[in-house]
This record gives sequence, C-alpha cells and structure tokens, in this order.
Amino acid sequence: MKKIEHIGIAVHDIEEAKERYTLLFGAPPYKEELVESEHVVTAFFRCGPNKIELLAATNEASAIYKYLQKNREGIHHIAYAVDDIEIEMQRLKNQGFRLLNEVPKKGADNKMICFVHPKDNHGVLTELTAEIKN
Amino acid sequence: MKKIEHIGIAVHDIEEAKERYTLLFGAPPYKEELVESEHVVTAFFRCGPNKIELLAATNEASAIYKYLQKNREGIHHIAYAVDDIEIEMQRLKNQGFRLLNEVPKKGADNKMICFVHPKDNHGVLTELTAEIKN
Repeated sequence: MKKIEHIGIAVHDIEEAKERYTLLFGAPPYKEELVESEHVVTAFFRCGPNKIELLAATNEASAIYKYLQKNREGIHHIAYAVDDIEIEMQRLKNQGFRLLNEVPKKGADNKMICFVHPKDNHGVLTELTAEIKN
Repeated sequence: MKKIEHIGIAVHDIEEAKERYTLLFGAPPYKEELVESEHVVTAFFRCGPNKIELLAATNEASAIYKYLQKNREGIHHIAYAVDDIEIEMQRLKNQGFRLLNEVPKKGADNKMICFVHPKDNHGVLTELTAEIKN
C-alpha cells in the first residue's frame, strides 16, 4: 500500500455535492467521469497526493443506489494505491481477506481495481487500485 | 487542505482491529496513544503520506462509544492536514460550514484539531488537523 489513493463518498445529488466540496477544497473537481459499467457518475477533487471521489448512482442497478437505500450519505470506501494489483490481491487472499472480484476490473480514473470485503476490515469497504500503464 | 492526514475508523475491539490492519498493511501500528480527554485509545498505521487511525472507546463518555451504539464499525471521519488551522476554520466558517469546536483543541498524534459538521459535508465528519510546532 503506497498511499490512500482516494476516499469514495456516496451522495444522492452529484451537482449539490460538487458545489459543497468545491467550497470545502476551494477548487472545483479536476475530473468528472461517467462509469457506465458501474452505473455511477463521479467527480474527483485533488487534495495533495490524495483524491476525494464523489459517487452518485445513475440507475437502480448501481451499488451506490443500493448502498443509499440502506445507509445515509457518507464515506463509502477507502482506496489504496498499489504497484502490482495481482500481487497485492494474492497477498491479501493468503492472509484470509475475501476479495469481491477475483480478477482486477476496470474502474474510474484509468485504474484497475479490486474490492476487499468490508467484514474483513472492521466495516470498511477497501479497494486496491493500480494505474493502467498505456 | 494539503493532504488527507488520516482516516479514523471506529472499532469495538482495538486489539482485534490492530491485528487485522497489521495484516492489511503488512506492518504493525507505529504509534498507540490513549487520548484521555476524548476517552479513546488509538492505533496509527502509516500508508505513505497518509495514516489510518483505529479508534476504540475507553468508556461511555466517548464519542466513539456513542457512535457505535448507533452505527456499525467503520469509517468515522476524514482528517485533512492544514498549515494554519485558525485561518482554515475561518475560511470554512465564512463559507457557511458549521464547526463543532469554535477554538482548536488538542487531538492525538501531536495535533491541534477542529471538527466540521457531517451535515455540511454530505454525511462525512470532517476534521482539520495542524501539527503542533514545539
């Protein structure tokens, strides 16, 4: 784990949340991205070496939609940056962590990602992310 | 906001959580600290420029105790590093954010801190932290 890559925050209204976090950081999002495969719209804010990712559902198939049916708005996951996602997935698997996807999948912001079960991290949905090298 | 200083994770059993996060990071906490004024025990893990702070209540007067009466274990707050906490508190106040303490207070890990209302950050309890310069 090299650093916290980003914190994902689940929100109902991405426009309202963008305005609010623009005030918090004193700067607008540097990137907005629709991730169709995940049924989410995202907005990314820079905070030094880290990012904040606002996430809103685009339809009822979205994990964010389901999350917000059961929970209030708030922090949805912590994503850590790793160099080699497959090595890190194997290391965690060997330690008994349950991976939510067995092979890395494409996430937002040019990343390959893997989620680790929140029950194995004291309630924290944990994401591994590695930059896709073009 | 210079970076994410740490993410605070509320847990029931600090010993169990320390073991688990030692596996996640592949290294033990670099610091453990009892913050008597806040009725919490903490354990800090390094993750590059960032930290993960595990928090458990020492008694029923603790905000973490109250939090875990109403919520499951999980992410409790995001703390951002700032240079001058009073300037940043004033800036946020001018933007309409509600501060939970009107003057900076002493937190764990040699920091002055101020909490910002979660309702003003889409459900995220937000903390400003500034290093105490000795």
